[in-house]
Amino acid sequence: MSNINKFSLITSNIPVDLAFDFISKIDVQQCLEYLTAWYCKVGCIQLFDEETILSLDTILNQDLLIKVIAKLPTVDCDDYKLQNDMENQFHQKLITLYNFNIKKFIIDFKVQNNSANLARIVCKYSNKPIMFNFKVPTLENAWDSWNTFRNMTGYSLQISIVLCLTKYLPTRDEIIRWIGEPICALSVSTNLFILNKKGYPVLSEDHEIILKIAIQQKWTIILSGEPLPNMKDYFYYIIFVAKNINIPSPILECDDLLQLPLQPLRDNLMSCVYHVFEQDPIKYTQYQKAIYLAIIDKEVKNIVIAVIGAGRGPLVKASLRAADLAAVNVKIYAVEKNENAIPTLLMYQKNVWGESVDVVFSDGREWDPPEKCDIMVSELLGSFGDNELSPECLDGAQKCLKDDGISIPCEYSSYLRPLMSHKLFSQTIKNEAIDESCLSNSKDAAFEQSYVVLQPHSYKPTKTKKLFTFNHPKKTLESNARYKCLEFEITYNMQLHGFSGYFDAILYKDIMISIEPLTESIGMFSWFPIYFPIKDTMLVKSGSVISVHFWRCCDEYKVWYEWCVSSPNQTPIYNCQGKSNSIRL
Amino acid sequence: MSNINKFSLITSNIPVDLAFDFISKIDVQQCLEYLTAWYCKVGCIQLFDEETILSLDTILNQDLLIKVIAKLPTVDCDDYKLQNDMENQFHQKLITLYNFNIKKFIIDFKVQNNSANLARIVCKYSNKPIMFNFKVPTLENAWDSWNTFRNMTGYSLQISIVLCLTKYLPTRDEIIRWIGEPICALSVSTNLFILNKKGYPVLSEDHEIILKIAIQQKWTIILSGEPLPNMKDYFYYIIFVAKNINIPSPILECDDLLQLPLQPLRDNLMSCVYHVFEQDPIKYTQYQKAIYLAIIDKEVKNIVIAVIGAGRGPLVKASLRAADLAAVNVKIYAVEKNENAIPTLLMYQKNVWGESVDVVFSDGREWDPPEKCDIMVSELLGSFGDNELSPECLDGAQKCLKDDGISIPCEYSSYLRPLMSHKLFSQTIKNEAIDESCLSNSKDAAFEQSYVVLQPHSYKPTKTKKLFTFNHPKKTLESNARYKCLEFEITYNMQLHGFSGYFDAILYKDIMISIEPLTESIGMFSWFPIYFPIKDTMLVKSGSVISVHFWRCCDEYKVWYEWCVSSPNQTPIYNCQGKSNSIRL
Repeated sequence: MSNINKFSLITSNIPVDLAFDFISKIDVQQCLEYLTAWYCKVGCIQLFDEETILSLDTILNQDLLIKVIAKLPTVDCDDYKLQNDMENQFHQKLITLYNFNIKKFIIDFKVQNNSANLARIVCKYSNKPIMFNFKVPTLENAWDSWNTFRNMTGYSLQISIVLCLTKYLPTRDEIIRWIGEPICALSVSTNLFILNKKGYPVLSEDHEIILKIAIQQKWTIILSGEPLPNMKDYFYYIIFVAKNINIPSPILECDDLLQLPLQPLRDNLMSCVYHVFEQDPIKYTQYQKAIYLAIIDKEVKNIVIAVIGAGRGPLVKASLRAADLAAVNVKIYAVEKNENAIPTLLMYQKNVWGESVDVVFSDGREWDPPEKCDIMVSELLGSFGDNELSPECLDGAQKCLKDDGISIPCEYSSYLRPLMSHKLFSQTIKNEAIDESCLSNSKDAAFEQSYVVLQPHSYKPTKTKKLFTFNHPKKTLESNARYKCLEFEITYNMQLHGFSGYFDAILYKDIMISIEPLTESIGMFSWFPIYFPIKDTMLVKSGSVISVHFWRCCDEYKVWYEWCVSSPNQTPIYNCQGKSNSIRL
Repeated sequence: MSNINKFSLITSNIPVDLAFDFISKIDVQQCLEYLTAWYCKVGCIQLFDEETILSLDTILNQDLLIKVIAKLPTVDCDDYKLQNDMENQFHQKLITLYNFNIKKFIIDFKVQNNSANLARIVCKYSNKPIMFNFKVPTLENAWDSWNTFRNMTGYSLQISIVLCLTKYLPTRDEIIRWIGEPICALSVSTNLFILNKKGYPVLSEDHEIILKIAIQQKWTIILSGEPLPNMKDYFYYIIFVAKNINIPSPILECDDLLQLPLQPLRDNLMSCVYHVFEQDPIKYTQYQKAIYLAIIDKEVKNIVIAVIGAGRGPLVKASLRAADLAAVNVKIYAVEKNENAIPTLLMYQKNVWGESVDVVFSDGREWDPPEKCDIMVSELLGSFGDNELSPECLDGAQKCLKDDGISIPCEYSSYLRPLMSHKLFSQTIKNEAIDESCLSNSKDAAFEQSYVVLQPHSYKPTKTKKLFTFNHPKKTLESNARYKCLEFEITYNMQLHGFSGYFDAILYKDIMISIEPLTESIGMFSWFPIYFPIKDTMLVKSGSVISVHFWRCCDEYKVWYEWCVSSPNQTPIYNCQGKSNSIRL
């Protein structure tokens, strides 16, 4: 048991999962010591063959066994009769281990092979809680082979990848592309290490870059190859690298969780939802700056501000602070249509704000202001800018403004870029299956709506491009319908699973808020990106262009998006005529 | 009314639908006369603009109006605001006409245009019983533009094509490819005609070929262009061409009707089903020839024949006739597991066949024969050869044979080739929608099974290739599981919608039956081809290869097919592990 404590010391607070996978048999007892030790601290996994597992039976407890990954032979050959025999052996082995409570299996994935029969095997176990990990070497064309295989399985949720580092050095783009795949681990063989000046094993600079990406992506690092006497030096090296990496912590555990966008116009938000968004450390500071600049520019002593959609008051507070800083008298109309928020507003008005604030219980579009205002402040933006119907609301509300009145924000735009993400796509497929059992009225509903979702496991091969822009206030109220086709040049083969959407907004002059990656307001957490799936996923070859068409459509009662891809392949128009999804006015 | 009779005379028994569509206005009364006349005899259609239709209101009766097709302007331009106006006008016009009971509309289809907005318009009316006919000129790349558009509509059942002949001469392959599309008419402009030696208007030889294909395909022929005084000469020419064409008559009105394959092993067929198949003029003649040759080869005076799956007795009759011709004594065991067929067999046995036939109520696989037989005759083949489990049945039954016994059939094979068919594919999509409302347990069920279906509206770009072969009797009973990958080289762009399947069977020596197009037994109607859809339809470019993988899988209880396409794109494996469809043993 002494070993356990030793390892505990080494690995405590190390933000990396470690495991090992050795070619030669090593002493089971030693193996177990390692395993127990690492498992205790870092959730280590161990890759065993069947024989070893059976011999461990008496030693390992069930909790530990769940962490064990069993090796299985690959099954794919061209001779059908041989194939049949191989498959039967495979199934027999798997079932033996499964009955032994092993639920994770690891299989060598042969790049360039026809992996059709391997895909059929995965399908066979789709009703069992089994995970298949495939050891994919980082060879040239490895991704293409994997992509073929993964498409054959119909985007199984039961497959994941152990990426095996080889002497072949993939480009940075090739490595980044793997982020869109369901990778659980990077396997580094001891024979890839070189000795540094002090005689300790390290990776070459190029390989270290890949190791760093892996640690950042929170992949488990597996040491493989021949077991060596100075094994610990190898572990130390990985831990050393990991310690110097800044790993982003997940926000509220929302990674890759598909959520439907809010519809604040249709639904009355609850108090707790307001509470979360009011904590944003960036947004209200930016608003306050913008309001301050607008007040200064007005050059008057008495300013009238309308807050359209006051919620529980954060923009009222920002306005009061801005007016205070600018040393002007202010009259604020806090207009809010959500009855859940009104009591809070009234409480603040009575106890804190006093006469300078009027709380108005009304939809901003219908509000008949007692006097015209200098500034109209609102925060009606969604992850895709206009997708919570800010354009329609502000068109309705702008009559409250004086002729030279200012809208904050004064302009906002949506942005798009293509995306590859096995996780997001397979989850959408899963949602579709669930939708169906609920008898949703549109069969493709899960694919014909957008999701707000953090997308850490996505590959985005290009920069964004601007889609739609809206300005406020408008001189003449023209339609908010829009259409645009965007084109993206692709330089590495990828599988297109949809598009990531973002927005930026000019609040006033150079004061902006943005979730668009290049201009992102760092630290602002109120908006996740948006994800528009495409049901008809397609391979996009390097050198080709992705053309996507987007429509923002409006009628008397609702607003909706339609989209389709026309290059490299033509898809149907998704959500055509808003059949699966629309935003109610 | 005299005109009606005149036209009746001309058009009676003319196997072609005729219509006209003139650029200039012609006298409404004359128009009406033509219309009434042609409508009476040949279900004529007339293409009018809105104004003309409204002026016809008082004259036309409702029955006639249903046949009227109204012209609508096209709607697609790059300026979004202009586009919006055009769409609004379009919708207004359409709704006016629709309220006037017009349900067919014709719209110019612009080759090379971005037809996205046109596709959105089609989607808008998906819940109304409206048909949109698109006038597509036979220009270069016309098919590619159409294909893009049709894919955007998501395979609407409400779109069809009026193919407009132009001076550009498409190749024969280009014309044949249109057969896979939902074409309702060929429009021939009067200005394409030339004068023959006698001074009558005719088409050039090349154009006439296209006209002939159109008539054979039963497309309506529309005369268009400037109305001319000698209009009737143009009609006469078309009727003249039509009279010299052999148009296949539809069998039982089954064109493009998707039917599930029979499962005679699982289900007991009803008497009426037997009745239809017993009428086949070719099949039993071939069986009789084969049995005769086998008897002769046996060189014995007393022959014992087992009919496995005797049904209502046609193979028993063929065996008796063959034995009679060969002048041998015969003992026939008529083995049948279907209780519905037994009474008929017993009736024949008692009244006609007498002692030479023993009726055995048993599954052929379980039958314990009182003596070994010389010949085993069966007709357990499906459209795809082995798909009604002939291999499994005959494996079970072959123990009834002497060591040197003969199986009739002795060998059969399945064949495949790629297919493009808007009709079959859109019907499969429709079936999918129906399946879902019935809560079938597999969401892709409609795409994960095969259909027996006549495929006159399909484009098959290549010859077939052989897939699986089975021989009987077998020396050793090996597995009937199979796997094969077939490749097809494509020389014209096409949209892949699935595969057509066929079979041939060697009954004995050179006596065959076949539905494989090159060796087809002409006149034999017992089997339609089979259709394997692929849910993930794809564009296949000229010069590329379609690779399709097929598996025949077996377990203790069932047999099923799996298939996938790996080139030009990778699809999932359809019906993996028989999840949507299998054939019960």
